[in-house]
Amino acid sequence: MKLGDGVEAAIHCCAVLAGTGQDATISAGDLAEHHGVSASYLVKHLKRLVAEGILESVPGPAGGYRLGRAAEAITLADIVLAVEGREPAFRCANIRRRGPSPLPDDAYLRPCGIAAAMLSAERAYREALQKTRLSDLVTEFLETSDPRVLERGCAFVERARRPQPASG
Amino acid sequence: MKLGDGVEAAIHCCAVLAGTGQDATISAGDLAEHHGVSASYLVKHLKRLVAEGILESVPGPAGGYRLGRAAEAITLADIVLAVEGREPAFRCANIRRRGPSPLPDDAYLRPCGIAAAMLSAERAYREALQKTRLSDLVTEFLETSDPRVLERGCAFVERARRPQPASG
Repeated sequence: MKLGDGVEAAIHCCAVLAGTGQDATISAGDLAEHHGVSASYLVKHLKRLVAEGILESVPGPAGGYRLGRAAEAITLADIVLAVEGREPAFRCANIRRRGPSPLPDDAYLRPCGIAAAMLSAERAYREALQKTRLSDLVTEFLETSDPRVLERGCAFVERARRPQPASG
Repeated sequence: MKLGDGVEAAIHCCAVLAGTGQDATISAGDLAEHHGVSASYLVKHLKRLVAEGILESVPGPAGGYRLGRAAEAITLADIVLAVEGREPAFRCANIRRRGPSPLPDDAYLRPCGIAAAMLSAERAYREALQKTRLSDLVTEFLETSDPRVLERGCAFVERARRPQPASG
């Protein structure tokens, strides 16, 4: 099972923007530099987060990204599914129906038990991701990080934040 | 999140071999034909199942594959991890440490909370897969399949099974 590289960057960006607050944005270039990833790579994932309403994009040279809703209303499942898509990880090609001596459609009215079990495990994964809110991650970060890490993060946000009029 | 194509074929082959019993094998060629996949593609996955002890390979022209242990002792997690590998789906590249103004190692003694939450959800997925035994899938198949599907499956096993001396 594999998740794309973009998931880690997307979650970290959302966490930074949760710390930034909704009265300011940070540019894709600053987010990319802070996380040591290419801006073009990052923008692809940020756009997916915007499409799902997790982030909001403020256009223009003084614009950037901010959370699209409160950090309490964003879960890890929201972010992972926005970046990776909602397709199940298990791809059922219905191989039970392949091979010689095929049977008609009405012999397969029940879903394949193998596919059903695989998809049930995926539901458990997504439910676990739904239990972690972005706000939980930020709280845990603030409460448990080394003071030097906190200071570096705060210094970045102070330098990179671009004050904006209140959201829509 | 993505699983490789081989997972579906691997689980179906294990289910067929559970129905075959451990006193006989089925060749990779017959398993491939029955599932409508290429034999060379399938052998790659069967070898991984053998490496994990889920299947046993009997060499020679009259050989083939059989379960390496009882179907009650094989879970979906065993099969999926054998085919896909044990690496976590979430790849933590430690991007929290990238970017300008790097901090020394001892500022990061605690694991990243984001990685911890992602890996915790993966544990939930694997635990769900562990709860489904191969024997459960076979029982469900026998109890719920259309009679024509059962007949087709039994006819295949009768035709393809190669009696063998008892295992090890």
